[in-house]
Amino acid sequence: MNMKEYTELIEEMLQKEGWPSAPCNLYDPIVYILQQGGKRVRPHLCLLSAELCGGKALQAVKPALAFEMLHNFTLLHDDIMDKAALRRGKPTVYKKWNTNIAILSGDTLFAKAFEQMLQYEGPNKSLLLQLFVRTAIEICEGQQYDLDFETMKQVSEEAYIEMIRLKTAVMLAACLQAGALVADADMQTQNLLYQFGIKIGLAFQIQDDYLDVYADTNRFGKQLGGDIAENKKTYLSLTALQTAQGVDLEQLQYYFSKIDFDKQEKFLAVKRIYDQYQVGETAMRLVHHYYDVAMDLLRQLDISESNKQKLKQYADLLIGREF
Amino acid sequence: MNMKEYTELIEEMLQKEGWPSAPCNLYDPIVYILQQGGKRVRPHLCLLSAELCGGKALQAVKPALAFEMLHNFTLLHDDIMDKAALRRGKPTVYKKWNTNIAILSGDTLFAKAFEQMLQYEGPNKSLLLQLFVRTAIEICEGQQYDLDFETMKQVSEEAYIEMIRLKTAVMLAACLQAGALVADADMQTQNLLYQFGIKIGLAFQIQDDYLDVYADTNRFGKQLGGDIAENKKTYLSLTALQTAQGVDLEQLQYYFSKIDFDKQEKFLAVKRIYDQYQVGETAMRLVHHYYDVAMDLLRQLDISESNKQKLKQYADLLIGREF
Repeated sequence: MNMKEYTELIEEMLQKEGWPSAPCNLYDPIVYILQQGGKRVRPHLCLLSAELCGGKALQAVKPALAFEMLHNFTLLHDDIMDKAALRRGKPTVYKKWNTNIAILSGDTLFAKAFEQMLQYEGPNKSLLLQLFVRTAIEICEGQQYDLDFETMKQVSEEAYIEMIRLKTAVMLAACLQAGALVADADMQTQNLLYQFGIKIGLAFQIQDDYLDVYADTNRFGKQLGGDIAENKKTYLSLTALQTAQGVDLEQLQYYFSKIDFDKQEKFLAVKRIYDQYQVGETAMRLVHHYYDVAMDLLRQLDISESNKQKLKQYADLLIGREF
Repeated sequence: MNMKEYTELIEEMLQKEGWPSAPCNLYDPIVYILQQGGKRVRPHLCLLSAELCGGKALQAVKPALAFEMLHNFTLLHDDIMDKAALRRGKPTVYKKWNTNIAILSGDTLFAKAFEQMLQYEGPNKSLLLQLFVRTAIEICEGQQYDLDFETMKQVSEEAYIEMIRLKTAVMLAACLQAGALVADADMQTQNLLYQFGIKIGLAFQIQDDYLDVYADTNRFGKQLGGDIAENKKTYLSLTALQTAQGVDLEQLQYYFSKIDFDKQEKFLAVKRIYDQYQVGETAMRLVHHYYDVAMDLLRQLDISESNKQKLKQYADLLIGREF
């Protein structure tokens, strides 16, 4: 199957799910967020991995949907915590309905994700369930670290990488491993795919940090400087806080101490310091590094060259590789 | 085993669980709520049911803990939605920490409950997992109906009973069925125990509604009129709204239209109408009815008379039977 067929399969299965109509305040928000689409990266990875390991994409549909539901559950709750008004260009559930409804429909979607996983019948069901629940716990841990970092003056690079590993990378990694489990691949293959997912996830997130400041706005499609406006800890901000000195450091700390600045003024002032200390370049070096490690892992995989190319292509698509 | 031994077993296993220490904002609230104790009704029912069906309580520990965790997860999130400042006499997690932490530690506890269930090894694992996830979904539905009712002028008795069935009764019923599944009891036994749990759960909740107005405060241990102060739909309020007429109905609607009344004045005014239309008696008649149906179901169970007595005793303890 190709990506388009994966997407059609996922959309078809999500449609078929047949959500209950009542209570509508519980299920309407779930249908609303699932129908918004998004890139469907997680189910893609799951289906792709199953095929690359010699299994059938169709066999991996239940885990693929379970991870997509798990991802959307995290969005429902994260948007409350991050006070995000928009998601995929539409009002978030907590804004369109309210916080209580976003909490409860999130809880329900979380349970539905487990239910989906329980419906899987095939090899390694027990391992798949364990992987799924461990991943869910790790994502919560990552989100908690992210929240904790907001009020911390300085965060170490190590702690930051661990946070994005938990918050972003483990789910991509788990989707790849899940596909391998469905195809009953050996443990070496499972581990290499998992680690590949971790490295690609880290590269993706650090590049996302970079793009918030340095993206070509014509192509990026969203406003720059969102992270800076909200004082979010990113790889760029923590690198700048570590390397800037004298008045630059003071200015950085001043701008990151409040959120009621003029957005554009703050963005330009912070970006000037980022430029001066070349934190964008530092970030992109790390993106390259993780990408290279991922490619090393890919080479070690015991699958055909053409299958390796398919996985590389998807990873390139995911991190919009331009380097 | 007796109840004291059940409790010791549950507390010991909860202690052993060994929660991670970091991120502390995620795990401290979980340890905090689990250590508060509570009556441990759900794990009791699970262990008791396993023994009554000829199994061993020890075999049912994992499901018992899973249901206790599921219950505490719902409390973490319900307290946010209900803006409850106190729980078991202590500040709720969302008050002691904050809303975001209560959401996330709840999510984590939910995932941990599933993890606990996955660790069960014994008969009917797959059915236990299905029962668990279905129950979790139903509880969310019940909580959503409860929230929906808050802003509705009138709620039918049928809709109210369905709400408390989902919100309160299904978890008690599921715990009893889970014990039966652990003991590999036949389907008839499972169903009778489940239905017994539903009826006892309904009786418990309606009596709880009654006690909010008519409890002996020396023994009840909490202030009367909490439901009335917050305009919560209860069996008493909906019965009163259905039966009161003329100025009584107008007064009732007036008092239930706002929350900024003097609490004591409102309580006495509403209670006067409840008294006049004997809604307390109507409620207790329904408690008796559900209790009687539960006892009918108990008689049909294919277990020894002494075991039936044990279950009856626990149900009597649960609904503090004084009638």
